[in-house]
Amino acid sequence: MVPMSVKEYDVVAVGGGTGGLVTAAGAAYLGARPALIERAALGGDCLWTGCVPSKALLASARRAHGMRHAEEVGVAASSAPLSFRSVMERMRHARATVAHHDDPERFRKMGVGVHFGAASFTGPGTLEVEGVGTVRSKRIVIATGAEPFVPPLPGLQEAGYLTHESAFQMDELPPSLVILGGGPVGLEFAQVYARLGARVTVLEAAPRILSAEDPDASAVLREALEEEGIRVLTGATAVRVELAAPGGEAGKVVVTDEGDTHRAHELFVATGRRPRSEGLELERGGVDTDGTAVRVDDALRTSASGVWAVGDVTGGPQFTHAADYMAKTALRNCLLPFSSRVDLDSVPRVTYTDPEVAHVGLGEAEARDRGGRIFHYELADLDRAIVDAATRGFVKVSADRKGRILGATIVASGAGELLQPLILARRHGLGLSDVAGTIFPYPTMVEGVKRAADAYQRTRLEGVGGILLKKLVSWLT
Amino acid sequence: MVPMSVKEYDVVAVGGGTGGLVTAAGAAYLGARPALIERAALGGDCLWTGCVPSKALLASARRAHGMRHAEEVGVAASSAPLSFRSVMERMRHARATVAHHDDPERFRKMGVGVHFGAASFTGPGTLEVEGVGTVRSKRIVIATGAEPFVPPLPGLQEAGYLTHESAFQMDELPPSLVILGGGPVGLEFAQVYARLGARVTVLEAAPRILSAEDPDASAVLREALEEEGIRVLTGATAVRVELAAPGGEAGKVVVTDEGDTHRAHELFVATGRRPRSEGLELERGGVDTDGTAVRVDDALRTSASGVWAVGDVTGGPQFTHAADYMAKTALRNCLLPFSSRVDLDSVPRVTYTDPEVAHVGLGEAEARDRGGRIFHYELADLDRAIVDAATRGFVKVSADRKGRILGATIVASGAGELLQPLILARRHGLGLSDVAGTIFPYPTMVEGVKRAADAYQRTRLEGVGGILLKKLVSWLT
Repeated sequence: MVPMSVKEYDVVAVGGGTGGLVTAAGAAYLGARPALIERAALGGDCLWTGCVPSKALLASARRAHGMRHAEEVGVAASSAPLSFRSVMERMRHARATVAHHDDPERFRKMGVGVHFGAASFTGPGTLEVEGVGTVRSKRIVIATGAEPFVPPLPGLQEAGYLTHESAFQMDELPPSLVILGGGPVGLEFAQVYARLGARVTVLEAAPRILSAEDPDASAVLREALEEEGIRVLTGATAVRVELAAPGGEAGKVVVTDEGDTHRAHELFVATGRRPRSEGLELERGGVDTDGTAVRVDDALRTSASGVWAVGDVTGGPQFTHAADYMAKTALRNCLLPFSSRVDLDSVPRVTYTDPEVAHVGLGEAEARDRGGRIFHYELADLDRAIVDAATRGFVKVSADRKGRILGATIVASGAGELLQPLILARRHGLGLSDVAGTIFPYPTMVEGVKRAADAYQRTRLEGVGGILLKKLVSWLT
Repeated sequence: MVPMSVKEYDVVAVGGGTGGLVTAAGAAYLGARPALIERAALGGDCLWTGCVPSKALLASARRAHGMRHAEEVGVAASSAPLSFRSVMERMRHARATVAHHDDPERFRKMGVGVHFGAASFTGPGTLEVEGVGTVRSKRIVIATGAEPFVPPLPGLQEAGYLTHESAFQMDELPPSLVILGGGPVGLEFAQVYARLGARVTVLEAAPRILSAEDPDASAVLREALEEEGIRVLTGATAVRVELAAPGGEAGKVVVTDEGDTHRAHELFVATGRRPRSEGLELERGGVDTDGTAVRVDDALRTSASGVWAVGDVTGGPQFTHAADYMAKTALRNCLLPFSSRVDLDSVPRVTYTDPEVAHVGLGEAEARDRGGRIFHYELADLDRAIVDAATRGFVKVSADRKGRILGATIVASGAGELLQPLILARRHGLGLSDVAGTIFPYPTMVEGVKRAADAYQRTRLEGVGGILLKKLVSWLT
């Protein structure tokens, strides 16, 4: 018999973001008794401080920008004043709508035990949850996510700063911002603030923005952001922060390694995220870490028997769809006798700036190293892009000799949507010939994908088969 | 020897729209000597009076509408006055940009003989081209397209009317229009005119608009159009047109079979299109017709040896991408010894209203008749749709017991883009399990496709396999 104060479950997910929610819901669906332990509110970063509210702000910023540039489609531009507060209120309203999906009652009705409180390991398979008591399970899935990594810059704490965790609580737009970090988070916020009326400077230490993406994508996006008036500085490392003299207009000054100073009303730190595992007392559970990341193998097992980890806390790709994928894999592995492995190279990623940057698989250099060839198509040539005034961007696909897709990058309005046929083809072994041999409706943006595949098809006609085909035609005509 | 006035080619395409252009370019690419005969300008309806200019107008109309409804994303709405003339000028500018693809010099450089003039058969394999002379070929591909079908309504000719052939020449927006026909052309124009400021009434004889599409799609689109202030009347057959008394505000009156009258400044006829074959003297070439449609088999052969037909003139699907597909098939069949067949059921179609309506394969009723099951997902539930304020619409997929895709309809902003993964999957035999087993980036609109596929996956868990899986889980936990 279990003592009264101990709750026992078949599966316990620690963390109520995507990883934990998918684990718990899936376990309930399969008839196991799952629990979900969360410190704050179900939904995680994605819902509260990440994808959902940021995409809501991007939608507003996109609309405002489209209104100011309506002449590009022959419509009189609007310079109606923007209310930052109403944009933020609308974001919160949209977020509240989405939040219904993550209502604790919904999960309780599925049969999930939902407990609120901070959890820590007290031993193998045993957790203590503040205000709840002891929770025991033979299967624990750690899904505690990540948090902003704030670099230890002298003066930064004193000056104060925003991150994606605090930014959605603001109600007034700072007239000017310096954003530290030119990755997806920094650039999405940069575009939001700039389009809503702020003067924005982005400082990126690497030689280019979006340094994990295709270099051409970085260049196209940089050009787009600069055209909108955003100052983008690369190879610029912040070394300290100072408060400007009182009474001055803009209060915070970032000093770079070259001694340049960048002054603004507000700072935004977007220099990466780090796994959130402090307070879990992982060592008591026998769970090894790399820094704050929970170490997992490709079956998502930690060093402790009966403990798995999924999502951002593993230090893997920091995406909701990655957490979903990992949670489904971990759930199979913890409930069923066979072991599935994750293929994190197959996880696509999208930066939701305008244009969006979407990628799956190998990068261009890596693909070339493996003998891949690159097929590139510029949207400036695409009929729908021309009529929609959305010609900025390209489709780039790498493929091996047989046309199998190694990787793909799309920069376009809606690139995250347009990439899906290539993600599907790559996942299921369809090649560029198969893509080229499929009818795409005209006129669409996704035709750009077909055009890149057509470029591959033409190389086949340049090969031996093509020469024979032309000889045959010449002989028959 | 061929007399001086006779030009001889390996392949002759009659008609310089998509079908003819693709035929001629493909033949040149394969090393044959092709010619292209066109009465007016290369590019066809698609470029001059169809897809290209209509999508340009829809882009402007979408922008104007988005500006007036910007509160939906927390941005102050704009009521800036619209200049119809500048929208039309912008459309012509975009069209001119696209037209570079169809520049005759580009085709001549490929090795295509481009001849302008009306063509007619003078015998098997022989054409007379006005102002050019006799053109002979063992392989003739008829690609003369279609034209608006104007019903023989008493009073219509006297009153005057617009069609898609004349509408792009206008520079002033009629304050009010009655549109005859609630198919894709009628509805796209209805939305353009309404969003640009006209009062629009659509009269459709069938019981619903877009009668070839999914009934739910018709209903959702009708609701959207009516919310924008468009009057949509179904089951309403026009029987005659009258001119209103001089001096009255609106000059033209459509009388329906029920005696209702609909008065407007202008009429727009969008009651279908009919193949354009008059003047070709097809009987002299031995080419049979059905009405004005050139009769073809599924290898696109006409009744005359050495004559094929592609695109709208066959009376098949009236889409640029269908003409492209047919032209590629006909070219293979006329140049190479094996015979390919077209599968016109695989041709997708999109109505480019907002929301768009995109479809491929079987309709719901047909799919159910074949034992298919329907998987439906409402965009109102989708996170990206919520944050983008684009929740109107759905994804509906029909699949057989094994999950193979029979058909799919998407109603959504950008539905024409979102359908492509399903078109690709259907074409290459991937099933809904394969779609569900693919990672979709979050948060995207195309995730709606995955959600529909997930609904299929859940039915598998309800089957024998699912029961066994749950038993296994229960036994293991």
